[in-house]
Amino acid sequence: MEFSAIQIATLLNGKVEGDPNAKVTKLAKIEEGTPGSLTFLSHPKYTEYLKTTGASVIIISEEIEGIKPANSTFIRVKDSRMAFSILMDAYHKQQFSKTGVEQFAVVAPSVKMGTNVYVGSFSYIGDNVTLGNNVHIFPGVHIGNNSKIGDGCIIYPGVKIYTESVIGKSCTFHSGVVIGSDGFGFVPNDENNYRKMPQVGNVVIEDNVEIGSNTTIDRATMGSTIIRKGVKLDNQIQIGHNVEIGENTVIAAQSGVAGSTKIGRNCMIGGQVGIIGHITIGNGVKIAAQSGIGADIADGATIQGSPAMNHMDYKKSYVMFRKLPELADKIKDLEAKNSK
Amino acid sequence: MEFSAIQIATLLNGKVEGDPNAKVTKLAKIEEGTPGSLTFLSHPKYTEYLKTTGASVIIISEEIEGIKPANSTFIRVKDSRMAFSILMDAYHKQQFSKTGVEQFAVVAPSVKMGTNVYVGSFSYIGDNVTLGNNVHIFPGVHIGNNSKIGDGCIIYPGVKIYTESVIGKSCTFHSGVVIGSDGFGFVPNDENNYRKMPQVGNVVIEDNVEIGSNTTIDRATMGSTIIRKGVKLDNQIQIGHNVEIGENTVIAAQSGVAGSTKIGRNCMIGGQVGIIGHITIGNGVKIAAQSGIGADIADGATIQGSPAMNHMDYKKSYVMFRKLPELADKIKDLEAKNSK
Amino acid sequence: MEFSAIQIATLLNGKVEGDPNAKVTKLAKIEEGTPGSLTFLSHPKYTEYLKTTGASVIIISEEIEGIKPANSTFIRVKDSRMAFSILMDAYHKQQFSKTGVEQFAVVAPSVKMGTNVYVGSFSYIGDNVTLGNNVHIFPGVHIGNNSKIGDGCIIYPGVKIYTESVIGKSCTFHSGVVIGSDGFGFVPNDENNYRKMPQVGNVVIEDNVEIGSNTTIDRATMGSTIIRKGVKLDNQIQIGHNVEIGENTVIAAQSGVAGSTKIGRNCMIGGQVGIIGHITIGNGVKIAAQSGIGADIADGATIQGSPAMNHMDYKKSYVMFRKLPELADKIKDLEAKNSK
Repeated sequence: MEFSAIQIATLLNGKVEGDPNAKVTKLAKIEEGTPGSLTFLSHPKYTEYLKTTGASVIIISEEIEGIKPANSTFIRVKDSRMAFSILMDAYHKQQFSKTGVEQFAVVAPSVKMGTNVYVGSFSYIGDNVTLGNNVHIFPGVHIGNNSKIGDGCIIYPGVKIYTESVIGKSCTFHSGVVIGSDGFGFVPNDENNYRKMPQVGNVVIEDNVEIGSNTTIDRATMGSTIIRKGVKLDNQIQIGHNVEIGENTVIAAQSGVAGSTKIGRNCMIGGQVGIIGHITIGNGVKIAAQSGIGADIADGATIQGSPAMNHMDYKKSYVMFRKLPELADKIKDLEAKNSK
Repeated sequence: MEFSAIQIATLLNGKVEGDPNAKVTKLAKIEEGTPGSLTFLSHPKYTEYLKTTGASVIIISEEIEGIKPANSTFIRVKDSRMAFSILMDAYHKQQFSKTGVEQFAVVAPSVKMGTNVYVGSFSYIGDNVTLGNNVHIFPGVHIGNNSKIGDGCIIYPGVKIYTESVIGKSCTFHSGVVIGSDGFGFVPNDENNYRKMPQVGNVVIEDNVEIGSNTTIDRATMGSTIIRKGVKLDNQIQIGHNVEIGENTVIAAQSGVAGSTKIGRNCMIGGQVGIIGHITIGNGVKIAAQSGIGADIADGATIQGSPAMNHMDYKKSYVMFRKLPELADKIKDLEAKNSK
Repeated sequence: MEFSAIQIATLLNGKVEGDPNAKVTKLAKIEEGTPGSLTFLSHPKYTEYLKTTGASVIIISEEIEGIKPANSTFIRVKDSRMAFSILMDAYHKQQFSKTGVEQFAVVAPSVKMGTNVYVGSFSYIGDNVTLGNNVHIFPGVHIGNNSKIGDGCIIYPGVKIYTESVIGKSCTFHSGVVIGSDGFGFVPNDENNYRKMPQVGNVVIEDNVEIGSNTTIDRATMGSTIIRKGVKLDNQIQIGHNVEIGENTVIAAQSGVAGSTKIGRNCMIGGQVGIIGHITIGNGVKIAAQSGIGADIADGATIQGSPAMNHMDYKKSYVMFRKLPELADKIKDLEAKNSK
């Protein structure tokens, strides 16, 4: 990013005090402001930071009194916190302003495309794909035959979406995400090797789902792997075939869910959690990081451990695990006394 | 996919009862059939589902009596289960029917290519690469110089194969797989920083290996990292430099194997398992999910825990771990009695 | 690789004894040498392997006496170990000899490019990107707007670098690495769904950092996620937003660091470790594989477990964990005696 004070003031309907040509290239908290950074001051108690900040441009609320640092420029607005938030959103959205199909992109003739769509170079849109309005496909994306991408989706560079995937509106997929790869389905035969089961289902992702970089979601063996609306998946998560994840459930990085497990809505699942296949996890469940889940979990439970148990019980057991050598010594002493 | 009833009947040599133009776009179990889905009925005990299924087309065995739902079309065949299986295979294979080099692909002049090869757009095939017959390379794949890809391999979009890799016949690599990246080899010097060891070995993968999305396999420091025939690796697995994995061993998602470890044949390794470097794991070993393996394992062992131990012993210890606070209380009581 | 004995001798200033046209295509230890492989012999104690090695070319130190195998060619040099090391380096570097922008690459007109830069096909270099001297960008790489890549960086196929990233000199990023994806920042609202926080910071990576395949590093919410000079990250590591990792710290595969945590310098962190957000880990800390870190760690500590504790205490507790069923039996016996 690079903005001048006057550009920002124009956008925010603010008034410049200082150098209208002051340039900023990054955002910072006021106490961490360095030359070239933009910050804001919304509460009088942070006024003292004006003495030490190096920020080049400071968005400041009208009612705040404070002496402008010599090397800073003020932009006076009604509500500086709100103005800063508007600016961040505007800055974020400006990344998605391109439209049209760039050079070196392949879009099959049968693709149905909405308005204001961007398809970056080196992206490959297969037969019969549907792209909704305002879909933004960065370079190097693959969308397999017969997939549907809903309005307003943002697909970052290098995402790979296999055939038949159905993606809702306003989803965001980060680089390296893989949607619809084959489930891990092999049947052993009597010669100790494995025959592959064709994986002929698909992946269905509902609206407002965000998926972090290098997360993988396998297609169903038959039927659909389903990610309900509002789900947020962090980076490097693995979702097996035929899994279903309920609305607004949030999963932290590097967790894995094995095939055919059903997770309820509004769950919060920590990082590096492993969840076995073919179980049901209720609504509103909380799972601590690194837990291993091997059985059904009731609604509202909070669990921890590998295998997991109620998290308060886990903490009590773990306190004693730390004291185990001491407990063992006590047992030895007792045995000595009792053998007399 | 989109098929009409008459197309399916022609493929399966079956007889249409109902609308020959009925369209299906997905597969379903009969009890989950919705409009637009194709299903099958092979056993009389499921006949009752004919009352409730919404499937548009039902492949049904000749000998089954059952009343056709008003909104469904029957396709009568000798053995409906077998017919459905044939259809799934045919459907699966139709994805790989393209041949030739697509637009915007780079194939070095020195590449040796078999018959019926497909190289998708944005794929890059380096100097002296050999591609066998019927190799199917989706768009956006990179194959480094001097690599060999055996007959019938399927390489999904975005796979990256480094130089000198040797891949056997009928392997399948899913999106985001990385083969042959540098092993993690650094030597500390006396200034507390690290000097990189050149990684000049390669990766050798034998026949019938399937590798899940975003799995990474490092090249050997010298010599080869070896994946024996029939091995199945799930998604997001990490295989270090100079590892060897024996025939028909199966590893579940998110497990990692550190450098120079040798794993036997016919092993079954659960998800999120960590295996230290420079050890030997025997044949037919079973390792529970989330275990940590820090020492050699004998043939046929079943182990669990971090660090891992015999899985029955682990279960017994873990039962007592859950009871630790109770055991600690008992010790306290005993001490009280014995101090009198 | 393919070299003849005479090519190698010329490079190393050595003398050929045997067939100057002998070809080698791989490197091997002398005891594992097969036809077509190159090896070296630097110490008299390994002379016996000359009887059994199948290596086609053997680099041998002048002072070693040994009978040349019939099917091998000797290259006599002063110090064969040093010569072999020079050869490995030369071989490694030859991969990076290309320069210029290949066909089907997109380089924005505003890009500033140093000398001897290579940009492979299907790579996309965004607006205002700066590429230093001797930067080697393999095919299929994405570099977002306003990013800077320092002199001598090697970016392997398929790496994705988001906007505003700042990369130092002599860094190496392996395939599938994602730099600068959005941090996992969502704020719950009263309807139980989540509002995304714009992630407007960036990633800063200093000199001599190597990052393994499919590792992901999120951009800061505001400010920078920082990887200090000399850091080595193995494959499939996840680094959250606003994390800072100190100089020369080394992290093994599949570990994860949650948002805003600060890790010191010269740390050694094992594989599959999970580190919670918003904590501080000191300098020179060692963390055993699969540990879970939930609190600050002092300089120089060595820790293990989930949650982690001092590693010697962990080992002592774990010894007793293995004996828990036995301890429980002893308590039972004591209770029986004491109830009399």
